[in-house]
Amino acid sequence: MGRQQRAVRTRRVILEAAAAMFNDFGYDATTIGGLIERTRLTRGGLYFHFASKEQLARAILDETSALRPVPPQPLKLQEWVDMALLLGYRLPRDPLLGATVRLSVDLRARALFGTRWPQWTDAGEELLCAARDRGELLGHVEPAEVARLLTASWAGIRLLDEALPDGELCTQFAVFLELVLPNIACPGVLAKLDTSPHRAAALDRAT
Amino acid sequence: MGRQQRAVRTRRVILEAAAAMFNDFGYDATTIGGLIERTRLTRGGLYFHFASKEQLARAILDETSALRPVPPQPLKLQEWVDMALLLGYRLPRDPLLGATVRLSVDLRARALFGTRWPQWTDAGEELLCAARDRGELLGHVEPAEVARLLTASWAGIRLLDEALPDGELCTQFAVFLELVLPNIACPGVLAKLDTSPHRAAALDRAT
Repeated sequence: MGRQQRAVRTRRVILEAAAAMFNDFGYDATTIGGLIERTRLTRGGLYFHFASKEQLARAILDETSALRPVPPQPLKLQEWVDMALLLGYRLPRDPLLGATVRLSVDLRARALFGTRWPQWTDAGEELLCAARDRGELLGHVEPAEVARLLTASWAGIRLLDEALPDGELCTQFAVFLELVLPNIACPGVLAKLDTSPHRAAALDRAT
Repeated sequence: MGRQQRAVRTRRVILEAAAAMFNDFGYDATTIGGLIERTRLTRGGLYFHFASKEQLARAILDETSALRPVPPQPLKLQEWVDMALLLGYRLPRDPLLGATVRLSVDLRARALFGTRWPQWTDAGEELLCAARDRGELLGHVEPAEVARLLTASWAGIRLLDEALPDGELCTQFAVFLELVLPNIACPGVLAKLDTSPHRAAALDRAT
């Protein structure tokens, strides 16, 4: 493994460890000292990548707000569904994604960095607007409102799941989609949408 | 005003001030000293009601988890809608309600006190089960799943609204109900449901 490749891997290890600590302890209680203990890196090794806790938090927020676009589909609404399914699938698997929710509801972190909710809502709105322009949506649907509701429900589902981990995250996203889609999609479009949770694993490999 | 009445009022003043501080600064950063400054009570006056910050947090959580029942309606599903409308209406008006969400997503407070999400979900599930038993729901509806989704979305809507206060809380709850109800209620029931945000103010006076 070359030096650059090793550096990329170390950077990822640090980000994932910091994300796990933000998730478990919150922003204030996470310290560089604790992170060094967790990653078993030297102080210099860590500072080579990140100069401060602030930089770590920003890097996590930036990384997850740059949502990788979902693969193109014949129906734009399917792409919106795919975005929701993928987020649900990755949330328990990607500590950076969980830390993004945590940092966004943490008062101190929010005051320092804001949230990335607007980017998430914009990404959903863009797909829903494209779906509307192609005649896939029912007439009453307001893309901005529905996109914001998805972001809010997504965050709420995650936060409830953290506190009451008896449910299945994927199932709860599926419940959301099943309840909401029939009142968003034109009937002909609805029949063609694939909302099965199995779809998410395949999408994850494809993006 | 009698001594007892005055004590009840002072207790409420303290709870609302503590709730506002939990909302603004989080659990850890809220202190009894700060609360004394805010309420202009003496230390003894405050300790007469609450012995510690823990007790204050518990009292707020207990008070808001004892959701006042909504007035009975010919349709049980209307009572579920009314519960959702009332929560949306009271959230920006009742600091205790906001503090309940804050304390439930605050890692330290959650570790100490747990959350009241189960009570909220149970209250919704009970109404939805009663609605199902009366034939008001479509056949595929799982009361437990829908009740949990309402709690999650409700919490998420609140948390997004805190961060992006450009939206109207009431509108966002209405969007949720409008998107979800057509896929929950039997058509004959749906036509009779009143989901207008104006309804909430009247309900608030009635409960």
